[in-house]
Amino acid sequence: MASAYCQNPFRVNAHFHENSRLLAPKIDYSSVNFPSSVDFPRLNFYPTLASTSTSKEYASDVHCLSNADGSMNEKELRQLADEIQSELLYIMSKTQKSVNASLSVVELTVAIHHVFHSPVDKILWDMEDQTYPHKLLTGRRPLMHKARTPDNLSSYTCRGVFDPFGAGHGCSSISSGLGMAVARDIKGKRDRIVAVISNETTMAGQVYEAMSNAGYLDSNMVVILNDSHHSLHPKLEQVPKASINALSSTLSKLQSSKIFRKFREFAKVLTKKIGGGMHEWAAKIDEYARGMMGPTGSTLFEELGLYYIGPVDGHNIEDLVCVLREVASLNSMGPVLVHVITKEDYKVEDNQMSKTSDEHHEGSINLESLHCNSKPQTYSDHFVEALIRESEKDEDIVVVHAGMGMEPSFQLLKDSLQDKFFHVGMAEQHAVTFSAGLSCGGLKPFCIIPSAFLQRAYDQVVHDVDRQKIPVRFVITSAGLVGSDGATHSGAFDITFMSCLPNMIVMAPSDETELARMVKTAVHIDDRPVCFRYPRGAVATTDPKSYVGEPIELGKGRVLVEGKDIALLGFGSMVQNCVRAHSFLQSWVLIREGSIGGFGAHVAQFIALDGLLDAGIKWRPITLPDNYIEGAFPQDQLALAGLTGNHIAATALNLLGRTRDALLLMC
Amino acid sequence: MASAYCQNPFRVNAHFHENSRLLAPKIDYSSVNFPSSVDFPRLNFYPTLASTSTSKEYASDVHCLSNADGSMNEKELRQLADEIQSELLYIMSKTQKSVNASLSVVELTVAIHHVFHSPVDKILWDMEDQTYPHKLLTGRRPLMHKARTPDNLSSYTCRGVFDPFGAGHGCSSISSGLGMAVARDIKGKRDRIVAVISNETTMAGQVYEAMSNAGYLDSNMVVILNDSHHSLHPKLEQVPKASINALSSTLSKLQSSKIFRKFREFAKVLTKKIGGGMHEWAAKIDEYARGMMGPTGSTLFEELGLYYIGPVDGHNIEDLVCVLREVASLNSMGPVLVHVITKEDYKVEDNQMSKTSDEHHEGSINLESLHCNSKPQTYSDHFVEALIRESEKDEDIVVVHAGMGMEPSFQLLKDSLQDKFFHVGMAEQHAVTFSAGLSCGGLKPFCIIPSAFLQRAYDQVVHDVDRQKIPVRFVITSAGLVGSDGATHSGAFDITFMSCLPNMIVMAPSDETELARMVKTAVHIDDRPVCFRYPRGAVATTDPKSYVGEPIELGKGRVLVEGKDIALLGFGSMVQNCVRAHSFLQSWVLIREGSIGGFGAHVAQFIALDGLLDAGIKWRPITLPDNYIEGAFPQDQLALAGLTGNHIAATALNLLGRTRDALLLMC
Repeated sequence: MASAYCQNPFRVNAHFHENSRLLAPKIDYSSVNFPSSVDFPRLNFYPTLASTSTSKEYASDVHCLSNADGSMNEKELRQLADEIQSELLYIMSKTQKSVNASLSVVELTVAIHHVFHSPVDKILWDMEDQTYPHKLLTGRRPLMHKARTPDNLSSYTCRGVFDPFGAGHGCSSISSGLGMAVARDIKGKRDRIVAVISNETTMAGQVYEAMSNAGYLDSNMVVILNDSHHSLHPKLEQVPKASINALSSTLSKLQSSKIFRKFREFAKVLTKKIGGGMHEWAAKIDEYARGMMGPTGSTLFEELGLYYIGPVDGHNIEDLVCVLREVASLNSMGPVLVHVITKEDYKVEDNQMSKTSDEHHEGSINLESLHCNSKPQTYSDHFVEALIRESEKDEDIVVVHAGMGMEPSFQLLKDSLQDKFFHVGMAEQHAVTFSAGLSCGGLKPFCIIPSAFLQRAYDQVVHDVDRQKIPVRFVITSAGLVGSDGATHSGAFDITFMSCLPNMIVMAPSDETELARMVKTAVHIDDRPVCFRYPRGAVATTDPKSYVGEPIELGKGRVLVEGKDIALLGFGSMVQNCVRAHSFLQSWVLIREGSIGGFGAHVAQFIALDGLLDAGIKWRPITLPDNYIEGAFPQDQLALAGLTGNHIAATALNLLGRTRDALLLMC
Repeated sequence: MASAYCQNPFRVNAHFHENSRLLAPKIDYSSVNFPSSVDFPRLNFYPTLASTSTSKEYASDVHCLSNADGSMNEKELRQLADEIQSELLYIMSKTQKSVNASLSVVELTVAIHHVFHSPVDKILWDMEDQTYPHKLLTGRRPLMHKARTPDNLSSYTCRGVFDPFGAGHGCSSISSGLGMAVARDIKGKRDRIVAVISNETTMAGQVYEAMSNAGYLDSNMVVILNDSHHSLHPKLEQVPKASINALSSTLSKLQSSKIFRKFREFAKVLTKKIGGGMHEWAAKIDEYARGMMGPTGSTLFEELGLYYIGPVDGHNIEDLVCVLREVASLNSMGPVLVHVITKEDYKVEDNQMSKTSDEHHEGSINLESLHCNSKPQTYSDHFVEALIRESEKDEDIVVVHAGMGMEPSFQLLKDSLQDKFFHVGMAEQHAVTFSAGLSCGGLKPFCIIPSAFLQRAYDQVVHDVDRQKIPVRFVITSAGLVGSDGATHSGAFDITFMSCLPNMIVMAPSDETELARMVKTAVHIDDRPVCFRYPRGAVATTDPKSYVGEPIELGKGRVLVEGKDIALLGFGSMVQNCVRAHSFLQSWVLIREGSIGGFGAHVAQFIALDGLLDAGIKWRPITLPDNYIEGAFPQDQLALAGLTGNHIAATALNLLGRTRDALLLMC
């Protein structure tokens, strides 16, 4: 039974593999689906669907893993969860990608889909990696089986029927969900909004902005905090796992029960009428009464205006369903936060994946080990090596790293710098200004942020660093196209938005030797900010022994190939493609892997103001095209973008009038 | 005694006006200054000073409004505060600028300078408007008296000896202060860091990122929350002013007392040793014990890892000094938050200024009133008028406004749209994604953010809006140079960073008629994001009756003046300057008030790829120069930037070889 199909609501069994026990025939799911008692008109089902049906979804029916009589019982939900887990483990074995984040939310996802009616109710996620169970339950199983590369799994997070908002950069789910909730109220609809956040994204400022505004606007929505104890947040980290026990389970249910909440509502109205100090006092008593029930950390959300319920065991479907059902049944509570505790290492203790991802934690600080490793060397490896060498000579060097996870190469840097390495998590804005403060205090900060996420701290780069001319060294990783991660994580705009800043020095190495020299250069420039960007992936294969070099000279290019008719000006890793393309005539062709308005624009501005263009020079800028490039193999992406050696050579040949040769090159 | 000078530490009396009672001779401040007992070497005084002495400061001595014996008593401090208030009121009368924000922190500033030793201790502010007392106390009185225009007052917030970090965009003080604290610890210094935040900036996500990280890193620093009840924050707003009373004053002192804090430290260590649940329980008891003393809102900071003290009456110098002295005396407490309550209308009830600034609150929704007003019409006035007209025809139009304050014109929009106007305060990231959510919910959001602050939400614009092609209409105000507000608030980069986005339509009206048409255009474009930018200040004087127009055609220019030799391509308000400059020859000159990489780059890319440049066209892009332009009168700023009609004409004449005529134009 290698490939079978049977009609059922979850569509998880659209095509299932031989080892899967998923949706075994003994459970007849079709009997519990689409109960006639679901009130479609009340939920404005059809209009909503029509307005969002521009998606890639394969299924477009209302989903809920229950009927009005609740005839899908706990045991069946548990079995479904088990089968989703098996499916995820199978996908993991196929794609060699860790799906731990998704494994941790299987029960939560099943419970959400059991209680809420997707797509009428909006289910929002703020981390792509946690959405696989949701995708399996909403008709994307065939797509997930087509995934050939690890990252392909997450490459289809576009908006669609069951995905009302893209989750690529994290921390957007409350803001977007609140917008949908407010729109729903204005439009007089009654659908429900469920936004899942994770404790890793609670480090991002936007989540606080959103929660605070949600508390203020008081629209109905359910925020679910999926807390897997991975946060850098000081308080949440302290919560012992033991806090999930029978007592807390009972208390969560009490907190979410209608009677208790109605009592609170009543108390609020009463004390508001009495007014003044009494109101404040009653609010405080109320707050602390619940505070004493909840874990350390709970009052934070209450202070921001969200009604806190929890903690709930994220792997106990019965508890989850009970709490969510209570929450879903109320229509005038304002925003509610349900705190769910999950464990990310759930059921994968003996799995190959977890071992691989932990490898870097055990590595000793040995630069040679980088080279002995069989995997291809990355630019990050070489950056780390260069910076460790510099930090041995200059004790003022410190590193600030922002982001959800960390590239394995940076673990080595962390081990080497120890107390001088600051990983601030998903808090890019703070990372930049914090770096500026470190610099003001006399240190030499290197601030490492991927290109796409540096966008989140652009004002801090402009105002707190560049405008004040504070020497912060920005290390922009994942610059340019990023392969299978696709448009969400590609770093297309950094050259453009960094090089327009008056004090910023913008660099991009064409190979790992230049990268090492740029690290040295950045250490030495101590009167203004500097940035250098490098791409993800393997380095150009130049000689790794040629490391110890001088700082590079600013504002100067390097002639790699002499010629007479064509000048190919490359920036960053595109230089390699220029070298591949070297053909000749008196013209200008500019190549870089960035958007319009960057390197090409600056060169054009410079040569135009000097009148160099007036003399009949043929100038052709080649940049990323004016659209987003979806995930694919890196070489395919370059071809799509028209940035391969062949493309560059063809452009040059066209300029020379050798159209036929150009066409041949592109065949 | 119109102009006198007497040597004293505060330098507030460097030049004082006739009505001032400031620093009357009867108090001999010089006797209490620079006590020999201040331990300079311990504080690393000289090296610190040397490394930061690149400033515009007039004074560079260590400041503290006390000596080691505390011989400057409360009465003298109170008198100093009164004199600073008089001085501020005098400056207000001279510049016609409200200084309420500064008046509210006079006592706080005096207390801070009394307890801490600036510039060895770092005093950081996160709102420029609150820094005038600090400036008066640190040698900037002569500069403040030179201020000719209202905004000149805030135009010198560069870093300097007494200003370790610029305060222009708000919410940076904890991040930068934490950086300095960590650098101090690494460098083995012992100076103290005081970061003042205001409750208006606690809406910004970066503040939470920073507090959370401060709680985690546990470096010693003092955060002072200056709470003037202006926040949109739901909880802080509920705190009644009555919460400041004798009891709370006593409790603040208790909380900050060494004995109480040492007891807590001891309890923490003890329970950590016992471990597990006991530790958690003890922490909770401790938290709530203090929580019950503090106001609603206090535990929020505790949750983030800051030790909360307060509230303290921000106008009672005795209390402030007592609490700050206790806080300053401890060296191992980690970050401490002192909650200070102030009132912004302090002592200016009968003042002309407060009346003027409140005027817009009373205006009825009457479009005609806009035109009857004697003050010059602004672009914002015309935008508001156009959007109100559109919203009367289309009930899906909603407005999201982000920013600390609100332009008076927008108050009219708020009154008109009522529940469909969302002012989210200083939470730009949330504002953008929230708008995207509203759009997903079927509404037509206009998201109003000043150019400089849109930088703060750039990633949200890229990822949450443009990448997902969600129709959000961005209204970018204060674009280009902003007159006396200077480089901090100028919107130099928006064209560059918006026009590189694949789906974004970027517009800039050359006059108010075009602005109205662009509003209409934006309403009609419902399949992708749109933005239009307009400058601060008065509109071009075209006919206000020509309003009702058609949407503009995308991608098309408009020929204003026919000619044969020179094509001047203008974008936005620069078109007016091009019209002034119309002179002629077959060349291209591009003018816009933005940085390199924007309109000029896009036109160049377009004409270069079409081979139009090959034919010998002389192309000259004219953009903002590659530096920040400080505050000045708008016309002076344009001259500095080389963007006046004369500059444009001279560039064109130069191209024609008429160098002599060009020179004459510039004389």
